[in-house]
Amino acid sequence: MRLFKRILIVGVGLIGGSLGLGIKKYKLAKEVWGISRKYTTLKEALKLRAIDRGFKVLSLIKDDIDLVILATPVRTIEKLSPLIKKYIPQDCIVMDVGSTKKEVVDCLDRIFTNYIGAHPLAGLEKSGVRYAQADLFKGSICILTPTSKTSRSVLNRIKEFWKNLNAEVILMSPSLHDRILSFTSHLPHLISFCLLNSIPKSYLKISGPGLKDTLRIAFSSAEIWEQIFTSNSKNLISALKVFKDNLSYLEKALIDKDKKIILKFLKKANKKRFL
Amino acid sequence: MRLFKRILIVGVGLIGGSLGLGIKKYKLAKEVWGISRKYTTLKEALKLRAIDRGFKVLSLIKDDIDLVILATPVRTIEKLSPLIKKYIPQDCIVMDVGSTKKEVVDCLDRIFTNYIGAHPLAGLEKSGVRYAQADLFKGSICILTPTSKTSRSVLNRIKEFWKNLNAEVILMSPSLHDRILSFTSHLPHLISFCLLNSIPKSYLKISGPGLKDTLRIAFSSAEIWEQIFTSNSKNLISALKVFKDNLSYLEKALIDKDKKIILKFLKKANKKRFL
Repeated sequence: MRLFKRILIVGVGLIGGSLGLGIKKYKLAKEVWGISRKYTTLKEALKLRAIDRGFKVLSLIKDDIDLVILATPVRTIEKLSPLIKKYIPQDCIVMDVGSTKKEVVDCLDRIFTNYIGAHPLAGLEKSGVRYAQADLFKGSICILTPTSKTSRSVLNRIKEFWKNLNAEVILMSPSLHDRILSFTSHLPHLISFCLLNSIPKSYLKISGPGLKDTLRIAFSSAEIWEQIFTSNSKNLISALKVFKDNLSYLEKALIDKDKKIILKFLKKANKKRFL
Repeated sequence: MRLFKRILIVGVGLIGGSLGLGIKKYKLAKEVWGISRKYTTLKEALKLRAIDRGFKVLSLIKDDIDLVILATPVRTIEKLSPLIKKYIPQDCIVMDVGSTKKEVVDCLDRIFTNYIGAHPLAGLEKSGVRYAQADLFKGSICILTPTSKTSRSVLNRIKEFWKNLNAEVILMSPSLHDRILSFTSHLPHLISFCLLNSIPKSYLKISGPGLKDTLRIAFSSAEIWEQIFTSNSKNLISALKVFKDNLSYLEKALIDKDKKIILKFLKKANKKRFL
């Protein structure tokens, strides 16, 4: 179902590239254009048919665009937005797909007329358009964070967009998004990075399948995750406090050799239903 | 290749059951017998053909056995061993497959004449014979922890046993095993249990695939893991200290908003080669 005429994707990495492939697979736009700093990325995206045309410079975009998707790391989204505003039609819908929302939404809501924040909870520990998949968002959750400024029609078109990519759409405020994701995404990543850095190199291969799963996300891009951590640091520090309290509780039980407390704590985890 | 005449598996759970299936698939013994406290487990193991005969009571075992595999949780291994000694031939080889080795090996090496400790680094977050697989150990590492008391012939036969199940055999001392595994298995489990207990229940489903991977091992049996943690508590507490130091280091950088330090820390993790 054609929802847009021409979509511009700024940042053609894993997420941007997958959006391009998805838009084309489900025919959500007539044309997909892409912007990247790197010529090699554009070449790869064109070859994979994730985009129809690629640009290195914003000023080259002369024709009409009705949806801009900002799919760069979060700080780059904020930095590029004032510049992007100059080159797109006033009424163009702008959506970012950054992993944190409060800072980004506060910033972009002021810049663009028709802006909405999105965060598809999909991805891999790998980055780059070469890993892009048309159905990356299939069966995953996409959080939209409309504000009082967001028009009903923008929200409905963007909802339709994600539903056509087979994602389940959930609405919440940017603040609630950042609080929840600090626990379910940012904290687990922080922990995984710390765990990997704690294990002596020569020990790593003496392990079973459990370790590989736990450490998978520690191979996520350092550049992207530094920006996520710092743009949601307040929530992340709070979530980390809860985790550290649990660690200390279990550590004390270990030192005290209190088997009952340990067993009770582990059983509490076992009982949690996941998904 | 027939290596043994009759193998007795004490504890027919995921590991014990998978050993039974593997022994039968690769014809490593003429007969496999199993012992379990629970009648339903024996029935299930017999139905799955993981064992040829099942017993609830040790004293019923009258015939010759040339290999006993102890596959119960670690503390039960230590508790049952003096009793098992009464019912098996003096020269019978005894192997445990417990997840910690120092305490168990110290204890069993004194009890049995022909004992060797083993730890196959395979498993699932699920327990019970119903999840048993003949090829659970294929491509995994099996650590053997011979002592000065272990005879060359026992070591060679047990090496052969695991190689026939397609596991890669590594030898090390019980102490080194416990130190390494405290980092690569016990600490990750402890962290995963703590992480799951830190996330508010209603937040859990607002997550992507990364969280599921990180939390998979938090659904491992509380009973088994309480015993692993407490029987390797000294090493685990040391490993936890290293991890907590890393957490505090990253937390401080977050509070200080020191992007450079954060980026450097995450890049250090990214660069580690895994497996």
